[in-house]
Amino acid sequence: MTIILNAKEIKSCVEFNHVLIPIIEDAFKSLALGKTTMPPVLRLDIEKYHGESDVKAAYIEGLDSYAIKVASGFFNNQKLGLPSSNGLMLLLDSKTGILKSVLLDKGYLTDVRTAIAGAIAAKHLSNPDSSTVGIIGAGIQAKMQLEALLLVRNIKSAYVWSRDFEKTKTFVENLKGKINIKINVCKSPEETVNSSEILITTTPSKSAIIKSEWLKKGLHITAMGSDAELKNELDPKIIKECDIYIPDSQSQTSILGELNHAIKAGLISAEKKYNDLGSIIINPNLGRRNNNDVTVADLTGTGVQDTAIARYTFKISEEKGLGLKID
Amino acid sequence: MTIILNAKEIKSCVEFNHVLIPIIEDAFKSLALGKTTMPPVLRLDIEKYHGESDVKAAYIEGLDSYAIKVASGFFNNQKLGLPSSNGLMLLLDSKTGILKSVLLDKGYLTDVRTAIAGAIAAKHLSNPDSSTVGIIGAGIQAKMQLEALLLVRNIKSAYVWSRDFEKTKTFVENLKGKINIKINVCKSPEETVNSSEILITTTPSKSAIIKSEWLKKGLHITAMGSDAELKNELDPKIIKECDIYIPDSQSQTSILGELNHAIKAGLISAEKKYNDLGSIIINPNLGRRNNNDVTVADLTGTGVQDTAIARYTFKISEEKGLGLKID
Repeated sequence: MTIILNAKEIKSCVEFNHVLIPIIEDAFKSLALGKTTMPPVLRLDIEKYHGESDVKAAYIEGLDSYAIKVASGFFNNQKLGLPSSNGLMLLLDSKTGILKSVLLDKGYLTDVRTAIAGAIAAKHLSNPDSSTVGIIGAGIQAKMQLEALLLVRNIKSAYVWSRDFEKTKTFVENLKGKINIKINVCKSPEETVNSSEILITTTPSKSAIIKSEWLKKGLHITAMGSDAELKNELDPKIIKECDIYIPDSQSQTSILGELNHAIKAGLISAEKKYNDLGSIIINPNLGRRNNNDVTVADLTGTGVQDTAIARYTFKISEEKGLGLKID
Repeated sequence: MTIILNAKEIKSCVEFNHVLIPIIEDAFKSLALGKTTMPPVLRLDIEKYHGESDVKAAYIEGLDSYAIKVASGFFNNQKLGLPSSNGLMLLLDSKTGILKSVLLDKGYLTDVRTAIAGAIAAKHLSNPDSSTVGIIGAGIQAKMQLEALLLVRNIKSAYVWSRDFEKTKTFVENLKGKINIKINVCKSPEETVNSSEILITTTPSKSAIIKSEWLKKGLHITAMGSDAELKNELDPKIIKECDIYIPDSQSQTSILGELNHAIKAGLISAEKKYNDLGSIIINPNLGRRNNNDVTVADLTGTGVQDTAIARYTFKISEEKGLGLKID
């Protein structure tokens, strides 16, 4: 028997709040402790339509279910009046492989677990008294990363830049009614960096937007846009020059993240090993050492996050008696 | 809108007959012509429970949808009274990535497209007048491969061997009422090879069962059991000594199939290029040259087969108006 959950049911199960933080933190801890099996991402490109489907999967030891997640990005969809992101999660029984649930979330759970990972990175790496944030990008993740950050830091002002100035203005206008902080439109990414103690990059850019010469003491950067080989938001020098570099999963960031570009540029050896986000959660001494450190979290999105949020969603849906049973 | 198809509906759409042969042949042809995008298989092992989930995916140029397929094998399931195989297929829109359908086939479509690939290999590689077949293994694929072979060759006698003699006897007894040919239980794999013009190996064996010294003129072998790095049914020398070796996809058989073991044994260079099954379908001159050739088809199962059969199933389900629409 498989339970089909639709997007509306899933949204009713998973509110976007602080409850999710320890759930995703636990996933990163399992990853750091080597208690997971997480194969490389399967990526299918459909170049003709500027589209891609990524499949991620992870088993976390001791848990009675695991997720396989499909996330698609089709970048002509906006012209067709459709969202570019899409997807679903599958939850399978760890003992038998039987399909327990199909979560037709249309990408919602991926958006949520991605934003929560950003909050977790800021919680463990940024200066605790940070009150300003810069956001690069004006899409769904830009909004969700900002909302997630408010769960962990007392932010007073946000500074937003994206390539499309009109889109940025609309983005900021839409947020103003919903979030009770000052939100400002920036004219350049440099202005955004100058104004911020925390910087979040959320674009699908294929060339560096943030330059290393803009770095300043104490800055924390969460770079979450790059999740594919050609994507790149940070000047590779930043990875070398920052004080603390933290991947969500180095086996992924060395291929798909910002680290990939620093390795390719010959700035960092492919052999160099970094502490990952889970290690910092377990042992905060491995993270920021003082107020002046420049810290960078490189987030590519991991299967363990998917398994954690799919399991949580399914648990709540069972409590609520939701979903359609199919034999 | 996504259409959910259950196993019963799927079985009512896809009868196991000759109609499927050109559908799967076309998939192999596309692969041979380089008109596909087929990433490496994603494989998640859950060693604790002797289980694995494989994800395959392929886009075939010009087609308006593509499949992502999950197949799980959990080898303790039999003790729990459950089938070891399981799975589902997802059909996505090639232009937008939107999920068109979830095919909850529990592995049926994988079984079918695998058996049909065996028939296609025998159709294009075995001697046309072959009337005897040897089957190594006594599971679902042993039965389906035999049934599929009857679609393309006028078989009079089958010879079956598996490690478990009692299971083999039961398997043969169960078949006798359903298939109108002579079916014999063998006491050794050598006896099976000696009795047969076509040999089909369908086991999850991790060491070679078929020895090279048993080879005889004119034999065609379809080895379809090995679809993972450690699986192996044929003595690696067979790959070197046979006259015609044909992979379904060499990029897969060199890692997951019988070819993998021949390369690892140093018998064949990893650089050597073979014609694949699709090439033989397009140009029969690349296949068997005479009655005496020993031919080997190495089938690991490909994403293009999944895309082909998922698309076909969905088309028939639409014509029949089947499935449950979920927004």
